[in-house]
Amino acid sequence: MLLQNALHASLTDPSLEVMNFLNEIAIRFPEAISFAPGRPNEQFYEAEKLTVYLDAYCRYLREERGLTEAQVKTQLFQYGRTNGHIHDLIARMLEKDEGIRAAKESIVVTVGCQEGMFISLRALFSAPTDVLLVGMPCYIGITGAAKLLGIEIVPVTEREDGLDLQELEDTLSRLKAEGKQPRALYLVADFANPSGKSLPVPARKRLLEIARGAGFLIIEDNPYGFFFREGPRKPTLKSMDEHQQVIYLGSFSKSAFPGVRVGYAVADQRVLGATGKQHLLADEFSKIKSMLTVNTPALSQAIIGGMLVMNEGGLLDANREAIRFYKENMDATLGALERHFPRSEAWARDVTWNVPEGGFFLVMKLPIEADEALLEQSAKHHQVIWTPMRYFYLGSGGETELRLSCSYLTPAEIEEGITRLARLIRSALEQQPARALSVG
Amino acid sequence: MLLQNALHASLTDPSLEVMNFLNEIAIRFPEAISFAPGRPNEQFYEAEKLTVYLDAYCRYLREERGLTEAQVKTQLFQYGRTNGHIHDLIARMLEKDEGIRAAKESIVVTVGCQEGMFISLRALFSAPTDVLLVGMPCYIGITGAAKLLGIEIVPVTEREDGLDLQELEDTLSRLKAEGKQPRALYLVADFANPSGKSLPVPARKRLLEIARGAGFLIIEDNPYGFFFREGPRKPTLKSMDEHQQVIYLGSFSKSAFPGVRVGYAVADQRVLGATGKQHLLADEFSKIKSMLTVNTPALSQAIIGGMLVMNEGGLLDANREAIRFYKENMDATLGALERHFPRSEAWARDVTWNVPEGGFFLVMKLPIEADEALLEQSAKHHQVIWTPMRYFYLGSGGETELRLSCSYLTPAEIEEGITRLARLIRSALEQQPARALSVG
Repeated sequence: MLLQNALHASLTDPSLEVMNFLNEIAIRFPEAISFAPGRPNEQFYEAEKLTVYLDAYCRYLREERGLTEAQVKTQLFQYGRTNGHIHDLIARMLEKDEGIRAAKESIVVTVGCQEGMFISLRALFSAPTDVLLVGMPCYIGITGAAKLLGIEIVPVTEREDGLDLQELEDTLSRLKAEGKQPRALYLVADFANPSGKSLPVPARKRLLEIARGAGFLIIEDNPYGFFFREGPRKPTLKSMDEHQQVIYLGSFSKSAFPGVRVGYAVADQRVLGATGKQHLLADEFSKIKSMLTVNTPALSQAIIGGMLVMNEGGLLDANREAIRFYKENMDATLGALERHFPRSEAWARDVTWNVPEGGFFLVMKLPIEADEALLEQSAKHHQVIWTPMRYFYLGSGGETELRLSCSYLTPAEIEEGITRLARLIRSALEQQPARALSVG
Repeated sequence: MLLQNALHASLTDPSLEVMNFLNEIAIRFPEAISFAPGRPNEQFYEAEKLTVYLDAYCRYLREERGLTEAQVKTQLFQYGRTNGHIHDLIARMLEKDEGIRAAKESIVVTVGCQEGMFISLRALFSAPTDVLLVGMPCYIGITGAAKLLGIEIVPVTEREDGLDLQELEDTLSRLKAEGKQPRALYLVADFANPSGKSLPVPARKRLLEIARGAGFLIIEDNPYGFFFREGPRKPTLKSMDEHQQVIYLGSFSKSAFPGVRVGYAVADQRVLGATGKQHLLADEFSKIKSMLTVNTPALSQAIIGGMLVMNEGGLLDANREAIRFYKENMDATLGALERHFPRSEAWARDVTWNVPEGGFFLVMKLPIEADEALLEQSAKHHQVIWTPMRYFYLGSGGETELRLSCSYLTPAEIEEGITRLARLIRSALEQQPARALSVG
């Protein structure tokens, strides 16, 4: 028998338990409409396409890259280059879809974006005084990875218009006084998970300046950037990055599909070694990756590679239908909220939500606590599931907020789900009259 | 510009540089016969089979598991269960091929065995006084992963007949006196990489007793167990494990193919939580995996799943041809060594090697140093590449030894390669007359 408290401390951290609770609720109430999972919609997936993509990639290897049959087989079946074999195709995609110019050698193909986060943290964080800055609320993939590595996390508030840069500067001064060294700031600049918020372009410029002054890198994670509801899309921080200050993390889980588990990191920073020779941060990432997963599965890379060569190098055009779908779902969610939480009715007056420019998520603020008890009541008596925002805060925060994900449902389900949510909240407010809670 | 010495300390550790040196040699001398890579041979791979396996798995899901078309699509494309969806098929395989009985819930499907090592270490190691025991010489995958996590590694010598259990017991006494806690011992009991050695059955029993007494777990890594040269195969420690003392790590990289990146961990240990409830160590592994790679690619799992259902649940029979191939290669290597390093000739008298019972590797001992200078000379002037054993030691050790991997070559290449190796060593000995080196 092992004692849980003798295992690594991260394992008893509540944030690593969150998923269990959400999964359990979903299993116990399978008929409930769920606004919880940040999953892409499956209507765009076709099993038959898998072999089409695979064939296209093999043909590309033979015809464009001049590989022999034996070399193609080696590429698909054998151990390969640690940083991947579709790095050149990803470099071309980034230029076409995002205006990001990155040398192919600076790209590390990872097992989903999550491995990219983990590798970035392991590479950059060394001393116990090194700290990671994150916008708060924050995606649990990065805080969880930091906890696995015992990295201190310092939150900076995310406001309606994105990261609070004044608070960031104050935090940097405080950290300096404490002898702490911010090594990186993690950020989803476009349609963040969980908040749905985006950083305005002037703030992106200012953030790059602040980072340069304070000597930390920005880890820009951009899984949702394609899915704008209101255009035009903002330039990524990486596309504005003239001084290699940004590690850019990309994912194919939303632009292709999650089961393939392919993401990538652009790590074009120069590293000065002890011998005076320079190399790329991507080369350091390679050493870490070789001790985590050795390679990203060759077959997964081949499928993404096939998708890229079949779509003239980019995936933005291939995602037009998906972009429209997610826009319509977000519109449907916002419309249903307007109708079912009418400002004209007293009970609904203090229920508010943000209006994201795109992505999968939005946040509602209630005049009551959006805790596990309310979620239990919601699932059991109203057959609707959502995610308490408290899960995305370190320490306190988000107690009266909930996250709605509108990516995985149909417009009809969204309409019915919001109807049920309104019923829940109305009845909860009637049971427990609105208290004087700060709902900011 | 980043300074390498401000990055994580593991990145300047020589063991993480090893692969770079070997890769560089292989690139510089592409015509050389290489005994370096521990890769499986590719002659058994057929690209056409990929869709056959995939189809077989989908058919199994529909017909045996009763999934609808939509559910099959979800399984292939969507995010899924963190610990994987072929855990039940792996449980059946383990019983059939290895006589290991493990509940399917105790199995974690990983991105290659490497992820299983990393997860095991992260879960078990917490306090700075926790130490990892390893047989020395040791596979760099485990020492590298331990270094990423800053875990102290304590070596125990591997002798001709496997791990030195007396030294292990002495080491345990010493660690106790130092206030250190051995949490786990990592071991490849069958045909180890790099040594090719196997632990005799009585020593396996004794090791389980020692581990039980001292309260550490055994991490048994078994990538080569199928490939015996002389039968019968020995029982794995896991199959002898009556008290859940063994975390068993398996790999499909050799029994199927490396590019699929599927491995697994059997973690059937009970964990007592703070609330008094018990759960499986596999449940803790799930939390860590969710912060590393989220899921093992569904498609990779489907291919292995298809292979398993097409082979009546096991892979041992499906590997008969591969088992024969690797046996013949090892026989060819041993035969060529006998012929080209004849004991009757003075120069060859102090060149020795071990005779593994199976696997991919053997170790030669020379009366001179088998260092990078000799390897450079070997590749450049004799067109033959091998691996200095020093790479597999922490600190000193292995200076006069080299590893030969005979898995990736044909018997004709082996014959020619050993001929060249004999020429190299003879000429090196003539240039640098044999010194009084301990080659024990």
